[in-house]
Amino acid sequence: MHSTVEIMVSHRLRVRYAETDQMGVVYHANYIIWFHEARDALLREAGINLAAIESEGYRFPIIDASCRYLHSARYGDEVVVRARLLREKVARMRFRFEVRHARSLLLLATGASVSVMTNASGKLLLRTPPNLDRLLKELAAKQHNKNELEV
Amino acid sequence: MHSTVEIMVSHRLRVRYAETDQMGVVYHANYIIWFHEARDALLREAGINLAAIESEGYRFPIIDASCRYLHSARYGDEVVVRARLLREKVARMRFRFEVRHARSLLLLATGASVSVMTNASGKLLLRTPPNLDRLLKELAAKQHNKNELEV
Amino acid sequence: MHSTVEIMVSHRLRVRYAETDQMGVVYHANYIIWFHEARDALLREAGINLAAIESEGYRFPIIDASCRYLHSARYGDEVVVRARLLREKVARMRFRFEVRHARSLLLLATGASVSVMTNASGKLLLRTPPNLDRLLKELAAKQHNKNELEV
Amino acid sequence: MHSTVEIMVSHRLRVRYAETDQMGVVYHANYIIWFHEARDALLREAGINLAAIESEGYRFPIIDASCRYLHSARYGDEVVVRARLLREKVARMRFRFEVRHARSLLLLATGASVSVMTNASGKLLLRTPPNLDRLLKELAAKQHNKNELEV
Repeated sequence: MHSTVEIMVSHRLRVRYAETDQMGVVYHANYIIWFHEARDALLREAGINLAAIESEGYRFPIIDASCRYLHSARYGDEVVVRARLLREKVARMRFRFEVRHARSLLLLATGASVSVMTNASGKLLLRTPPNLDRLLKELAAKQHNKNELEV
Repeated sequence: MHSTVEIMVSHRLRVRYAETDQMGVVYHANYIIWFHEARDALLREAGINLAAIESEGYRFPIIDASCRYLHSARYGDEVVVRARLLREKVARMRFRFEVRHARSLLLLATGASVSVMTNASGKLLLRTPPNLDRLLKELAAKQHNKNELEV
Repeated sequence: MHSTVEIMVSHRLRVRYAETDQMGVVYHANYIIWFHEARDALLREAGINLAAIESEGYRFPIIDASCRYLHSARYGDEVVVRARLLREKVARMRFRFEVRHARSLLLLATGASVSVMTNASGKLLLRTPPNLDRLLKELAAKQHNKNELEV
Repeated sequence: MHSTVEIMVSHRLRVRYAETDQMGVVYHANYIIWFHEARDALLREAGINLAAIESEGYRFPIIDASCRYLHSARYGDEVVVRARLLREKVARMRFRFEVRHARSLLLLATGASVSVMTNASGKLLLRTPPNLDRLLKELAAKQHNKNELEV
């Protein structure tokens, strides 16, 4: 009966040297960048081309971001960032993230972000543009059906 | 009667071109870096030289970081990051941050981070090393006296 | 008899933790960012507000950048980036940079960059806009006079 | 009769939002990071695990880096960074880079870097450690044979 639609995507990446700091591990602000990258991978998976969307005059600014650090990622590690989108009725997207070491699956960090949608001059949209809404619902339905089949 | 000691420092910086993104504003992960810079400015103000501390074998990893974005900082802007340290009895430091536009004082973002202290091999310290504890208390007392005088 | 006008500015900064890598020194790409920051400090010194200039429709893209690394900068160090602008008759700015440790004056790195000027759609300008040209010449004259007096 | 051995690797990546600046294109210092990433992909292709090598006490600092910018990479673009290693007899690695748009193959940037090898305390090695030398020669021979077969 709840109104949220859920979508999930896993995004894999390899830690860059540039992402380390002198503690010998990934500098903590880089997880926030990874979360953003995983968010965009999820939108792309739904068929939403953010570059095209921006040129149509929409923006998806992030208004809230947070991360809890449990274990360190290190240079050369492959990590998987799992993004989960919890949709609400308003034009706001809540994401939850988990970063795991790709091989051991050790949970390295958890986090969250909230994106809103605005027009090019920064005015908040109250409703998700219909074409985006449709794409997100299609991906949610596809993932839901796949999960049902796998049960 | 509460056990926390509070210290506050303001850290001023000018937005770099490198810190902007294609929305024409400061990329959101950079606020997390600014928080870190303000944290270190506060510790430096207390006479704590983190570079020296690290070579003595201590580390101050950040285990939690978050930011809420209210208004955008832009290239060339001068901003002030105010860091407030709420000390606890354990070797853990809770920081609160506010980012304001230096001229208008418009509040751009608020945030928080939690730092712990470890030895070089990552083992958590339960108590703040006595010399650091003393320096933080001295700064807290100095700021407290200054505030009393100004009232 | 040569046509170049020379301007020089020193820009001081403190190394951020975020700028280090796991070798325990400043990650090499950050010097390129510092060069950019010093370039902008020089233009600001001349009274050129790049944020305003961009909103008037001009851009100053960097088309060439290089750095030679001699000694490492480290977390917490104060460094001075000296930028020297060699102007040419075309709308192109050649900069030379030196990064020195602020206290010891040890030379850490040298570098160069070339900026061109374009309009908002990326078309190259052949001549420096007259108002910018005037500002740069005024700063050059001021610095020249100051040097003459000091000899 | 020349003493250099040549190895080539292509490294593909997708432009992150975090890598753009307010000109709407990839911020120029990020190409230097991409070059580094492509360098490490080449070493990994040769079977050289840099993380392991560093824990054995070797470092590969970059002492020279440069980039010429021809066309802009944009958010969401897939680009290919081709790294070519020109080996010399001393423990020094010269790399040449080309960044191309993955689909159009448009050349976006060219660049170079020079890496040396040091021990953990920063002392220059005069000769490449034998195990690394062997791995690089094996990859060079493999690539050479492959090219011969393809002619």
